[in-house]
Amino acid sequence: MAGAEQIVIAGAAATKFGRRPEVEIAALGVEAARAALADAGFEPADVDAIYVGTFVAQSLNRQGVLASLIANLLDLGPVPATTLEGACASGSIALRHGMLAVRAESARVALCIGVEQMAGAGTEAVTGALGEAFRRDPDQAAGLTFPGFFGLVADAHGARYGTGREELTAVATKNRAHGATNPRAMFAEAVDAERVETSRLIADPLRVLDCSPIADGAAAAVVCRASDAPRPSRAIKVLACEQASGPISTIEAGEDLTSFSSTRAAAAAAYATADVKPADLDVVEVHDCFTIAEIVDCEDLEILPHGEAGAAIVAGATRIDGGGDLVVNPSGGLLSRGHPVGATGLAQVHELVAQLRDEAENQVPGSKLALSHNLGGTGAAATVTVLAS
Amino acid sequence: MAGAEQIVIAGAAATKFGRRPEVEIAALGVEAARAALADAGFEPADVDAIYVGTFVAQSLNRQGVLASLIANLLDLGPVPATTLEGACASGSIALRHGMLAVRAESARVALCIGVEQMAGAGTEAVTGALGEAFRRDPDQAAGLTFPGFFGLVADAHGARYGTGREELTAVATKNRAHGATNPRAMFAEAVDAERVETSRLIADPLRVLDCSPIADGAAAAVVCRASDAPRPSRAIKVLACEQASGPISTIEAGEDLTSFSSTRAAAAAAYATADVKPADLDVVEVHDCFTIAEIVDCEDLEILPHGEAGAAIVAGATRIDGGGDLVVNPSGGLLSRGHPVGATGLAQVHELVAQLRDEAENQVPGSKLALSHNLGGTGAAATVTVLAS
Repeated sequence: MAGAEQIVIAGAAATKFGRRPEVEIAALGVEAARAALADAGFEPADVDAIYVGTFVAQSLNRQGVLASLIANLLDLGPVPATTLEGACASGSIALRHGMLAVRAESARVALCIGVEQMAGAGTEAVTGALGEAFRRDPDQAAGLTFPGFFGLVADAHGARYGTGREELTAVATKNRAHGATNPRAMFAEAVDAERVETSRLIADPLRVLDCSPIADGAAAAVVCRASDAPRPSRAIKVLACEQASGPISTIEAGEDLTSFSSTRAAAAAAYATADVKPADLDVVEVHDCFTIAEIVDCEDLEILPHGEAGAAIVAGATRIDGGGDLVVNPSGGLLSRGHPVGATGLAQVHELVAQLRDEAENQVPGSKLALSHNLGGTGAAATVTVLAS
Repeated sequence: MAGAEQIVIAGAAATKFGRRPEVEIAALGVEAARAALADAGFEPADVDAIYVGTFVAQSLNRQGVLASLIANLLDLGPVPATTLEGACASGSIALRHGMLAVRAESARVALCIGVEQMAGAGTEAVTGALGEAFRRDPDQAAGLTFPGFFGLVADAHGARYGTGREELTAVATKNRAHGATNPRAMFAEAVDAERVETSRLIADPLRVLDCSPIADGAAAAVVCRASDAPRPSRAIKVLACEQASGPISTIEAGEDLTSFSSTRAAAAAAYATADVKPADLDVVEVHDCFTIAEIVDCEDLEILPHGEAGAAIVAGATRIDGGGDLVVNPSGGLLSRGHPVGATGLAQVHELVAQLRDEAENQVPGSKLALSHNLGGTGAAATVTVLAS
């Protein structure tokens, strides 16, 4: 929007991710929202639009109109309350629509929340609900699962580029090492290669430590124009927040399984909008739902060359202590933090806000420019957000 | 947005509502979308954002990321595809977000779709899924249902204003008479008072002909700036499209059951934004999910005075042949058209677009200014849209 005033994230927060079956799903969103508002220096009464991203709140928790319920619990009054769904990208889609509401001058202060509560539901129920990210026919009917799909991605990437166990393990050990200092992570504990490589096989070649864990949790960000931020020195600029779609039935569509077209489209739009290049970035949070996904993400985002990401990660190029120019997933990523599906996109943004404020637990020194990447389903949706201090 | 260019509905369409269990839910949305694009004079390649409103596509149809799937089937390419949920107001919330995307200059042409497929799922499954519009505790746990809730609304309205069987029957017979000429209506057949009053009791005092039927169907509208509409003479101005939230747990919140605060808030915003008064309106589509709801809606929208809507409807004030100044639900409303939940808000808009083009089946002569009202759940969300020729 030419000439429009800069939009910022005035505040952000995330709950600890893990098992929280004892509370109502809305309570998780409320917890993150209150913390984000407090971080921004806003009161609930300042909010004039609320966006809630969630994937399976209806299927697993039988709770619809979740944005209205959270608005009620926060005592926001009659503000527009909108629930959005884009599978695992739901949280960042909520952020994007808060930003659009501010840009459209429909809201001055938009509260954006991502939330999910899955860990108490049992494996069968969760697998079934997550399957809603696939087309009912043929994919759900054929029994496709996320580990199954990403196992195929790993096979395809391996066949084309030689990516194998060493590269997958390097992602897992890096992210678990990064996450060891993250107090909100579900698994704040480093693991060594042997532990990864002897962990239970889930969908060949993926082992359980190649897979992000389901979790309960929420994250939130408050969006407004720069001049409306109560604490300008802590406000983080949103240079771009772009969203793209891709095939839902990825295999049937004959897609190249070594790359996601939605990521590429969102990234191209985000780099153009923000007028930055991948080489300019200091710190990145990508959607490592599985180890192989981080490799593909880094290539699709043009952070690392196609076919070379695995080797670069093995060499430590994206480790905080690796001496490289760019750190990927300093929070520990989904592999360490856990993946309460709808919350993930905003948890990534929360981490990057902390990085750009120079107050992250696992701080990347001198971070000025950051990018988050959130992938929905098997590429049916993707968002890329570029933030700057 | 001061000084911004007028946003219009360039085209709109709806499928026939009824039983369509044989197709995939996405196919319904595709059918409405293709017809709306053709009506507008756009090609799928012109679309650069898609919004899909649905309430129970996941719970009943096990289909998530529905906006991406519909985008795939329409061959839209990587455009942002967003699924939104606001219970029975999901369709109009999709419209509103298409409008905001255009206003934010994020999209030039936004395709907005509402869709639901319910009729083949069986009463128990549908009742359970619709219950997701209530708070899980205490309302779902207590067994609250929509007919039960609106039966309480009828009781409360009766106790305060004397609204009873005669007034409820007048809504039913009016809307079924209006809908008799609607080729897309599920029940395009007039009914007399006796048939309404001897129909099966559902939740006292509501009988089955006081209740809108569940259905399968979709509706769509294409939104752009006035200068981008391929057929300017057929473009309908969006003067306002406002959304508000209200209590999800209406009874627990101690709300006055004779009025919905979300409707009042959305209406106040819409009248202010459009700079029109209720008396200026020529034709209105309101959310008559139950006969009593139309009475409450007319009062909340200030179309008829509080406590007097029932008598006015009995007197024929809102019938197309009643000689009054304002016609309510010329399409037949939800009672006649059927209520595929997520589709309803856009079906209302489709009817009003036809009215303002002077080409509706049940045309209100000389319609220049129209309003639609879509209610989500028991008032958790409401939208009010003001359209002009």
